[in-house]
Amino acid sequence: MKIKEVGEFGLIERIKTKLASPHQDIIKGIGDDACAIETQKGRLLLSTIDALIEDVHFDLRFISAYNLGKKSLAVNISDIAAMGGTPKFFLISMGIPSKISVEFIDEFVNGLRETANSFQTYVVGGDTSFSPEKLNINIVLLGEAFPGNVIYRDNAHVGDQVFVTGTLGDSALGLKILMNRKELSKVEEKFKDLIERHCNPTPRVAEGRLIAENCLASAMIDISDGLISDLGHICEQSKVGAKIWLDKLPTSEAFQNYSPEFADRPMDLALAGGEDYELLFTVDRGNVDLLNSIKNRFKTTVTHIGEVTEPDEGITVLDDSGKRYTVEKKGFDHFL
Amino acid sequence: MKIKEVGEFGLIERIKTKLASPHQDIIKGIGDDACAIETQKGRLLLSTIDALIEDVHFDLRFISAYNLGKKSLAVNISDIAAMGGTPKFFLISMGIPSKISVEFIDEFVNGLRETANSFQTYVVGGDTSFSPEKLNINIVLLGEAFPGNVIYRDNAHVGDQVFVTGTLGDSALGLKILMNRKELSKVEEKFKDLIERHCNPTPRVAEGRLIAENCLASAMIDISDGLISDLGHICEQSKVGAKIWLDKLPTSEAFQNYSPEFADRPMDLALAGGEDYELLFTVDRGNVDLLNSIKNRFKTTVTHIGEVTEPDEGITVLDDSGKRYTVEKKGFDHFL
Repeated sequence: MKIKEVGEFGLIERIKTKLASPHQDIIKGIGDDACAIETQKGRLLLSTIDALIEDVHFDLRFISAYNLGKKSLAVNISDIAAMGGTPKFFLISMGIPSKISVEFIDEFVNGLRETANSFQTYVVGGDTSFSPEKLNINIVLLGEAFPGNVIYRDNAHVGDQVFVTGTLGDSALGLKILMNRKELSKVEEKFKDLIERHCNPTPRVAEGRLIAENCLASAMIDISDGLISDLGHICEQSKVGAKIWLDKLPTSEAFQNYSPEFADRPMDLALAGGEDYELLFTVDRGNVDLLNSIKNRFKTTVTHIGEVTEPDEGITVLDDSGKRYTVEKKGFDHFL
Repeated sequence: MKIKEVGEFGLIERIKTKLASPHQDIIKGIGDDACAIETQKGRLLLSTIDALIEDVHFDLRFISAYNLGKKSLAVNISDIAAMGGTPKFFLISMGIPSKISVEFIDEFVNGLRETANSFQTYVVGGDTSFSPEKLNINIVLLGEAFPGNVIYRDNAHVGDQVFVTGTLGDSALGLKILMNRKELSKVEEKFKDLIERHCNPTPRVAEGRLIAENCLASAMIDISDGLISDLGHICEQSKVGAKIWLDKLPTSEAFQNYSPEFADRPMDLALAGGEDYELLFTVDRGNVDLLNSIKNRFKTTVTHIGEVTEPDEGITVLDDSGKRYTVEKKGFDHFL
């Protein structure tokens, strides 16, 4: 049977069923942004791994070695942020083809160090191998959290309100522009902010911590596959549905100005483009006032975009006239 | 500059220099079998990552999906064993090309589960991606050890005696036979034990623990790159040299019977073949009697193969007449 017949999430479910066994210290195993292991009373070790494979996750025509280094670590940090945790230590494994130069690795490591320093994250080990054709990078990040305020995906309840940090769709639009212009050097200055959002995402660690420390969210995830797809993970694991208000989705000025030029249905980029690395979280109605009262402590905007509904409603997107809006591409699946 | 101009270990040194910064909790960072982080007083978190890339670390004509699953985890467990630690939890990242079927993944996971169960090791998370051409697997393993009896590479002293578990060269000979016969199904029955040693190595966890708990070793490493190369890591980090007695090297009956058929210089396979996944360790003279007195508690043989010398002597291999023996290939470097 071909893997595309089961899809990425079918494959993960299959591996999980065969492989996962319970252990008293595993508080959260496969299926969240990171795992959570109780290494000592009152302290959780978080751990996450992310692969970046050339021509799947990145294209060397579109991203510099420096930004690739930054992004490789940033996407892992984003997973720890989505648990409300603090990133601490990382290991890096690189499969390096012969076309890659020492100077490329130097620049890559400079980027990695920049992100590591920004988030007080320390390298502790790794592995380097030859790779026949494609550059591939795997980073595993260890972080920590306190059991009382770590946030999983499976605790959203009907009536909770849905929020998102920052703006959506910039990264996907940036990628569309890169693919259209075919080379980083051919991209016009006016698009640089969008390209930056794609090549150099900012993980929302401080925001995640603020949400966690104030016990604001019932569920949280970072948006890597796309809003609809990642909200789908929360809904599936929490056994709820959700509705999203299309006209409430936060988009940047650059996105509003330029997305119609590159997409027939621009809002599909905000709904399903992916790689936003913003935090998507659900908040009990009783906590919404508290969230509003501390919004000014966030370094980014926080926008109310929908609410959690009964599970049989699935995820619906409503336009400003209350009509159902259909997204053509639901999000990213590696094998479909 | 091409990476082969600096080599694998030159590249690692370069990355380490640029990237590694000290942190009070990092007891051992880049440069050992695993890192050691003090997560709480009196307890170390060990962590290691290993890549297995198709056509670099394995060839799908030579290894079954089941054994590949077993081996992927076993090589990581071996790294924790080499610290004297206990393996606990792992994450797995897979880059999967379209030629790989769901059945292959099922069998791979069956093998993974078999090794996980044998060593009471639990999956906690992972990542699955599409990969354009080659199957690539990265496993990160978390383990634990007590600060008093974890064993690093950097504490061997002049006069210490060198020991190794099990037999050497079987795995490299097994690989030579596979490459000669070109397909697993074409390998004769009499070679099956050698093939098994290559495709299904046994990490020496119980032995590593026994050595650690009895504070027997001053330095320890697992042999993945080859005896000479891995002894070289101990010597370099401990700033010592070593001499090895060729006629003392432990080889299996199958190795003695068949290696001359496949190698002009069979002992080079034992000295530099690699992938033995045996433990190589140095013992203070004062501890040799203690080691001998508990040898019967090891599940495998333990052989005295040499001694630690002054650094300026480097690593020398002596034949039974005391003459220096020169190994043609020193060990594995991914970029040379």
